Amino acid sequence: MGTEAEFGKLVVFGVGLIGGSFSLALKAVGQVGEVVGFGRSLGSLSQAIDLGIIDRVGANPGAEVADADIVLIATPVAQMPDIMAKIAPYLGPETLVTDGGSTKSDVVAAARAHLGDRIDRFVPGHPIAGAENSGPAAASAMLYRGKKVVLTPLPENSTLDVARLRSAWEWCGAQVHQLTPGEHDRVFAAVSHLPHLLSFALVHDLARRENGEQFFNFAASGFRDFTRIAASHPEMWRDICLANRAALLDELDRYQTQLGELRAALDQGDGAALEEVFAVARAARRAWADGKLKE
Amino acid sequence: MGTEAEFGKLVVFGVGLIGGSFSLALKAVGQVGEVVGFGRSLGSLSQAIDLGIIDRVGANPGAEVADADIVLIATPVAQMPDIMAKIAPYLGPETLVTDGGSTKSDVVAAARAHLGDRIDRFVPGHPIAGAENSGPAAASAMLYRGKKVVLTPLPENSTLDVARLRSAWEWCGAQVHQLTPGEHDRVFAAVSHLPHLLSFALVHDLARRENGEQFFNFAASGFRDFTRIAASHPEMWRDICLANRAALLDELDRYQTQLGELRAALDQGDGAALEEVFAVARAARRAWADGKLKE
Repeated sequence: MGTEAEFGKLVVFGVGLIGGSFSLALKAVGQVGEVVGFGRSLGSLSQAIDLGIIDRVGANPGAEVADADIVLIATPVAQMPDIMAKIAPYLGPETLVTDGGSTKSDVVAAARAHLGDRIDRFVPGHPIAGAENSGPAAASAMLYRGKKVVLTPLPENSTLDVARLRSAWEWCGAQVHQLTPGEHDRVFAAVSHLPHLLSFALVHDLARRENGEQFFNFAASGFRDFTRIAASHPEMWRDICLANRAALLDELDRYQTQLGELRAALDQGDGAALEEVFAVARAARRAWADGKLKE
Repeated sequence: MGTEAEFGKLVVFGVGLIGGSFSLALKAVGQVGEVVGFGRSLGSLSQAIDLGIIDRVGANPGAEVADADIVLIATPVAQMPDIMAKIAPYLGPETLVTDGGSTKSDVVAAARAHLGDRIDRFVPGHPIAGAENSGPAAASAMLYRGKKVVLTPLPENSTLDVARLRSAWEWCGAQVHQLTPGEHDRVFAAVSHLPHLLSFALVHDLARRENGEQFFNFAASGFRDFTRIAASHPEMWRDICLANRAALLDELDRYQTQLGELRAALDQGDGAALEEVFAVARAARRAWADGKLKE
């Protein structure tokens, strides 16, 4: 009785926000059968059992992935090589492996180094979902509803495997897009990583001044919005910046060029040039906001 | 019957958001008697009458300021020299003159040039109140409640006049602070003008790329917050940047130095240095947000 789940068995490495929510979302729509979890903290694994995120705690990664339909590596990138090396020899012929990392080129490099000739099993992915909170308690079946997920298929991937992964994320309620790993890293360097760096920079520079409090005392709504992301997790963003270093340096250099143009216009008192830049920016920002409202 | 209003007669130049709200706020607490308005648009003046912002439209500036208790010049700075020159010869011996401009050094320079030996009458001010909307219809008696107002008294001002202006703004519900004009311009360059410039720069640079839409397509909440102020009025911000050019260039140079340090850390893969900057920024941003919640 009942339709068979699309994914009979899911193995998830990392049972926090990303991995936990993926499991809960698939369970909520009845599209996964058994979920086996791996993690580094017995507390988290125990909590994941209690919250219904996983059905079992795995003991032997190789044994568990052998008959898994889908494997999600939802850990920090630093932990991925070891996991990949451990599971590579045991992956089933149709076992689909994916990840949830914020950067892709480094994940792909790790996969090429540690999955070896099983690289075709690995379809990299990046769910764009808020990470304010973490851990199993933060996981939710609704996390991915209406959110974007970017898959960055490799040349070795089959069309079928990419379609299967797309299907999994669509069951989670996400809108799936595709980019190459390089495109992904450049895009997110520009619209996410660089803004974080710029915001951290502004706040840090004010905080280190002798009379810093006077500045903060008169900071208002514009400052509040611009610096909201400066309250982000330092370690997580250190890792993202280092992981996406090349693309981020490139974006930073482009931005410095733009700033230099503005500085020159300001220095020369060129109001027309300033106004042009501001008007183009305003129009683009409003068009983007309007576009999002229609989604 | 009833307490006498603190300000028998207010003359306001500019009957839009800033000037209109000042009048409405004082009227709402019964602390102003007659309000006479000057403006460049008959439509605005007529609307101001209809909305109860002003009691009369002025015809002769000199005649009106002669028996005014307080004069608020709530126009763009570009219009101030002319107004100041017109009223200077006629200001009563105790007529208090002030303004609502976002920058102060340039306003003070205009006042020194055009009020002549009546400069002692002029106590510069800057109400920090949102300017999303404009015009008489946007004016509200509540606009300044809980907001900050910065006065930048001149050496020529009497303690009494500064106290009178403080009192006026406090009747509007504002929290009054004092800085020198130079301090004001440096502070606002850092916490308001520079962030706007930086936000405009990011959006403009993305908008001018050939494949710009791809970037905007994947921009999410961090981008949204960071770029909210990039939707600000181009002309208004052109004027603010030009008016506060010196302080803004100085802040931009400091910021470029900070960015250079981050670039070097990123280039060298110095995760510890990045994390330190991010951690200091996060702590400062959170402390600021917590402090505001307690207000």
